[in-house]
Amino acid sequence: MRYSQLLITTAKETPAEAEVISHQLLLRAGFIRKLTSGLYTYLPLGLAALRKVERIVREEMNRAGAQEILMPMVQPADLWEESGRWKQYGPELLRFKDRHQRDCCLGPTHEEVVTDVARREVHSYRQLPVNLYQIQTKFRDEIRPRFGLMRGREFVMKDAYSFDASEEGAEESYRKMRDAYNRIFKRCGLEFRAVEADSGSIGGSFSHEFMVLAKTGEDTLVICQSCDYAANLEKAKAAPPVKTEDSAAMLDCVKVATPGMKKVDAVAAFLGLTARQVIKTMIYVADGELVAVLVRGDREVQPVKLKNLLGVTDVELADDDTVWQKTKLPVGYIGPVGLPIKFVADQEVMLMVNAAAGANEKGFHCTGVNPGRDFTPALTGDLRQVTAEDCCPLCGGSLRLTEGIEVGHIFKLGTKYSAAMNATFQDTDGQEKVMIMGCYGIGVSRVVAAAIEQNHDANGIIFPLPLAPVQVIVLNLDLKNAAVTAAAEQLHSELEAAGVEVLYDDRDERPGSKFKDADLLGIPYRVTVGKGVEKDGTVELRSRRSGATTMLPLTQAAGEIADKIRVELAAAVGE
Amino acid sequence: MRYSQLLITTAKETPAEAEVISHQLLLRAGFIRKLTSGLYTYLPLGLAALRKVERIVREEMNRAGAQEILMPMVQPADLWEESGRWKQYGPELLRFKDRHQRDCCLGPTHEEVVTDVARREVHSYRQLPVNLYQIQTKFRDEIRPRFGLMRGREFVMKDAYSFDASEEGAEESYRKMRDAYNRIFKRCGLEFRAVEADSGSIGGSFSHEFMVLAKTGEDTLVICQSCDYAANLEKAKAAPPVKTEDSAAMLDCVKVATPGMKKVDAVAAFLGLTARQVIKTMIYVADGELVAVLVRGDREVQPVKLKNLLGVTDVELADDDTVWQKTKLPVGYIGPVGLPIKFVADQEVMLMVNAAAGANEKGFHCTGVNPGRDFTPALTGDLRQVTAEDCCPLCGGSLRLTEGIEVGHIFKLGTKYSAAMNATFQDTDGQEKVMIMGCYGIGVSRVVAAAIEQNHDANGIIFPLPLAPVQVIVLNLDLKNAAVTAAAEQLHSELEAAGVEVLYDDRDERPGSKFKDADLLGIPYRVTVGKGVEKDGTVELRSRRSGATTMLPLTQAAGEIADKIRVELAAAVGE
Repeated sequence: MRYSQLLITTAKETPAEAEVISHQLLLRAGFIRKLTSGLYTYLPLGLAALRKVERIVREEMNRAGAQEILMPMVQPADLWEESGRWKQYGPELLRFKDRHQRDCCLGPTHEEVVTDVARREVHSYRQLPVNLYQIQTKFRDEIRPRFGLMRGREFVMKDAYSFDASEEGAEESYRKMRDAYNRIFKRCGLEFRAVEADSGSIGGSFSHEFMVLAKTGEDTLVICQSCDYAANLEKAKAAPPVKTEDSAAMLDCVKVATPGMKKVDAVAAFLGLTARQVIKTMIYVADGELVAVLVRGDREVQPVKLKNLLGVTDVELADDDTVWQKTKLPVGYIGPVGLPIKFVADQEVMLMVNAAAGANEKGFHCTGVNPGRDFTPALTGDLRQVTAEDCCPLCGGSLRLTEGIEVGHIFKLGTKYSAAMNATFQDTDGQEKVMIMGCYGIGVSRVVAAAIEQNHDANGIIFPLPLAPVQVIVLNLDLKNAAVTAAAEQLHSELEAAGVEVLYDDRDERPGSKFKDADLLGIPYRVTVGKGVEKDGTVELRSRRSGATTMLPLTQAAGEIADKIRVELAAAVGE
Repeated sequence: MRYSQLLITTAKETPAEAEVISHQLLLRAGFIRKLTSGLYTYLPLGLAALRKVERIVREEMNRAGAQEILMPMVQPADLWEESGRWKQYGPELLRFKDRHQRDCCLGPTHEEVVTDVARREVHSYRQLPVNLYQIQTKFRDEIRPRFGLMRGREFVMKDAYSFDASEEGAEESYRKMRDAYNRIFKRCGLEFRAVEADSGSIGGSFSHEFMVLAKTGEDTLVICQSCDYAANLEKAKAAPPVKTEDSAAMLDCVKVATPGMKKVDAVAAFLGLTARQVIKTMIYVADGELVAVLVRGDREVQPVKLKNLLGVTDVELADDDTVWQKTKLPVGYIGPVGLPIKFVADQEVMLMVNAAAGANEKGFHCTGVNPGRDFTPALTGDLRQVTAEDCCPLCGGSLRLTEGIEVGHIFKLGTKYSAAMNATFQDTDGQEKVMIMGCYGIGVSRVVAAAIEQNHDANGIIFPLPLAPVQVIVLNLDLKNAAVTAAAEQLHSELEAAGVEVLYDDRDERPGSKFKDADLLGIPYRVTVGKGVEKDGTVELRSRRSGATTMLPLTQAAGEIADKIRVELAAAVGE
C-alpha cells in the first residue's frame, strides 16, 4: 500500500471537539471523520484497525463453538412487545414507523430477534446447546454522544446468545464465553481485567465486565497487583479486618462537649485521637426509610454495598433538614449510643475499642464508646469503600485503583426472554421446557478506542501489533535519490511478498513530516530507508513502543521483520 | 464443521410465501429466515455464502485500487437537502426523527455522505483519483418486498464512488470498475453479461448493468451467442437492414378496398402478401403531440428507441378515440401516403418495395407503396424491437433473448452531486474545479439469490464452487459401524487440515435423508463413506453439478479433493 494513494489526511492540531485522547488521535490520524453527532465514517486505516478486532473476535467465537449469523438491524415492535421492552426501554431505542405505519426500531441489541430465531429453529434437546453470534452495526440514540468511538450512536458490536437445556449447561456456556473473552482481549494485546458486575437492566443472575485498563475509563476498578482479583469499586471486597486493640481495657462511655465540631477530623484533633478512632455515623434514606450507617472515621460508605446489605433498591444520603424533621437528631453529632433509629455497621466498626462517636445531642460527642457493650447494630457487614491501602481479599497482595473502559460484558440471562417469548424445547423426558439463555457482548469499535486510550504517547498512537491497521511503515527519506528509492521499493515489495502488512511512505514530503506521521499513526514498526543504504546497504528498524532502533542489511530486512512479527503475534495468542 | 452441531433445519415442503426458486430454496435449505416483511436473518450457511461473495468483491475492489471505508447507515437530512434528494426521493427512503427531533434517514445509498467525505478530505489534484467503497447493510422501504433476498428491504450492498479531476480520468475510473466487475462475476462462477443501461434516477451520462442470466429475471436481455454483445431489449440494436428487393420494378400506388381488415395479418392474407410486405402505422403521443411510427408488419415498435429518436421524455400509444378526435384518421387504416400528421419510420421501412399500407380512409389500404416516391418521414432510424431471429449488430452471430437479474450497476455520475454539494479541488492550474464522480454498486446479497436462480435443479441448489458455503460434504452412512465412522472422521480431519471447507454429516439420520439434504444445500462435492470403506478402502466422490461419481481410496481422498478444488477455483479466477 502506497501512502501517496491512500485517503489519509493527518492533522497537527488537536480538534477542539474531542475531549478524550482516543477521539483526538483517531481524528488527527485521519482514521475516522464525524458525519453528525455520534455518527462516524471509518476511513481506510480506521476501518483496517476495526477489522483486526473483528477478525480476532470471529476466530475466537468460532473456536468456542459459536455460530455466526446476521440478523436485521431494523426490528418490528411486536417482538419487543412480547418481551415487554417496547415500553420499558428508554429513548435510546430509536423507534419509527415504516411506510405502512408499522412500528419498528433500530436494533440496539438483539435478544428479542435471536429468541425468535431459536423458538422457530430449536425444538429438541438434541439441538442444544447452541450459541449464535453476529458482528453488526448497532444504534443507540444516546442523549449526549461523545468521546468519538467510545460512546457513539452507531457502533460495531459482537453480540452472542447461548441457549441451553439446563442450568449446568448454561453455566458451561457462560464459562466458555468467559474463556473466549479472555483469549480475545489477550490476543488484542491489551491490559484488561474481568470483573464481576451488576447485570443492570438486561437482568439475569450473574455477569462479568471486561475492562481495558486506561486512565480515561468511566469506571473505577480495584485490581490486585499479585493475582487476578479485580472488581468494580462498588463491589470490591475489603480484606477481613483484624482486631488490633485490646478490648480488655475498655473505658467508660463519657459525654464530652465538642462545640461546633461536626467533622471527624475536628473531633479527633480536639479529643487527641486519630480519625480511625472515631465512629462516623451517616444517615441514608433506604427505600424511604431513614437508616444510620456506621463506618470508621477514615472510611467512606459504599452505597452499593449498603443497598445489598439492606436488600433495598435505592439508597441515598439524607439531607440535614429531613433528618431533623423526622428524628430531631443533629447531623454532625449523631452516634450509635442510644440512637432511636435503625442502624447498621461496617464490620471494622465492631472491632473498635474506646472510640469516639456523636452523642445525639448538638455540640456533644461520647468517648469510650465500645461496640457490643454500648450499642448493637441491626446488621453488620462489609459496607465501606476499598482504598489502595487495603490488601487483596484473595491473596493479601497490594491493590491498585485504576480506571477501566468496559469493552465486553457477559450475562447469564436465565429465562427472562425465553419465558416471555415462549422459547421452549422438548427435553429428554418428553417435557416442554424453557431454554436457558446467556448473552455476551463486545463493543468492537470501542475496543479500537480503548486500545488507543491505553496505548499512546505525546507523539500519537502506539498500536498493539495485533490491532495495528498495518504492521510496518517504510519511509523513503529521499525520493529523488534513485538508489534510496530503489531500495525502498524493493523492501516494500519484499515485505508484501513475505505477508507483512506494509504502508510505503512514497510521498514527496520532508523527512520530519514522515517521522511525525509514522508516530501519529501508531504503526508498530518503522523502517527508514535513507542515505545509509547507499553508504553501507543498511536500513533502520525502529519499534514505535520502545523506541529501540536496529540497523539491518537491506537484503535481510524483509525476512527478519517478517519473522519478528510472526513471533510476536504467536506470543499474543499464547502459542 | 459437524452437521449435528450446526443450526440448520431443512424442509421438504416448498414454503407457500415464496414465489421464486431462490427464495424457496434459501428457506428450504435453512439459509435464511424471515423476521418480518423484507427482513431476513442469515443463518450460518446462508451467511457463509454471503461472505463468499463479499470476499471476492473486496479482493477485486482492492486489486482495482479502490479503498474500503465504512460510512454510517443513519444519515442526517441536511446532506440530502443539499443534493436536493430529501424531497425527490420516494417513500423508499425511510425518514424519521431522532430523540432530538432532527430529521434523519436510513441510507439506501451513500452519494451524499461520500461526497461530504470527499469535499472535506480532498483539496488538491494530487489526491485524485480516489475510489472509496464499502460493503454495508442498506435499507430501502420497498412497498412490496418480495422474492426473499432478491428484493428485500434490508440488503447487503457494495457501493463504490470514484472522484476524478478530469473527464478522461473519470472514464478511466469507470473502465477500471467495469473490468473489476467482469472479474468479480467471473470469479463468482456465474453466467452474466454487462449491458448498456439507462442511468435512471441517479442521473449521469452512461452506465452499464451487470445481469446474471436466469429465467426468473425481471429484465429481458438480447445476448449474442458468438460475441460479448448484450443489451436490454429496450436498447438492443437491430443489425443494419439489407435491401433484398429491386426498386426498379416499382408498381403504381393503388387504393384497394379491405373492408373490416384492421390487422396486418388480415390485410396481408387478403392481398396475397406476407406481413413483412405491409407497413404498420402506429400512432403515439410523444410529449403531448401525435406522431405516427412506421415499422414493417412483422415488427414491433420499441418505445424507448422512439423516445430517444424523437428526443422526448415520454411516449405512449394513442387510443383510437384520441386519434379520431384530433385527426379524423381511422385507426387500422392509417398509412404514410398523404398522412397529415408528423411521422417517422424504422430504417427497414425505407428499403421496402411495393408495400401495402393504410389509405387513411376507413376500409381501404394502398398497394404499390414505395418509400421516397410516395412518402418521406420526418425522421428515420432504428425504432423496432429486436427478436431472436435478428443477427448480432456487432458480429452477425445468432442472438438469444433471455431474462436477467441485475446484480451490479455502474454509472458515470459526472458532477450531479459534487456540484450540488460543492466538492471542489485545486487543479494543476490553481483553479478550483468540481470533482467528477462515478458510482458503482453490487447487490451482494442479491448475488447469492441470483446464483441460485441460475444454478439449481429439482433436488435443490447447485452452488458454483466459489460461492458455496462449504466446498465438500462428507456423509457418514453408518454411524454405528466403527470402521465407517473412523474413516469418515479421518476424512473430515484430513480435509480440514488440507484447507478444504467441509461439513461432516455426523447425524443419526437415514442415508436417504442425508443424500437429500446434501443435494438441497447445493454443496459442490459430496463424499459418501459407507460399507465400501470396509470392503476395499474406498469412498465415493460425487459432483453435485454433473452427478458424476468416482471411487477414491480413503488414503488419497483428502489430497485429491483438495487439489481438484484448488484447480477449479484457480480456473474461475482465470489464472
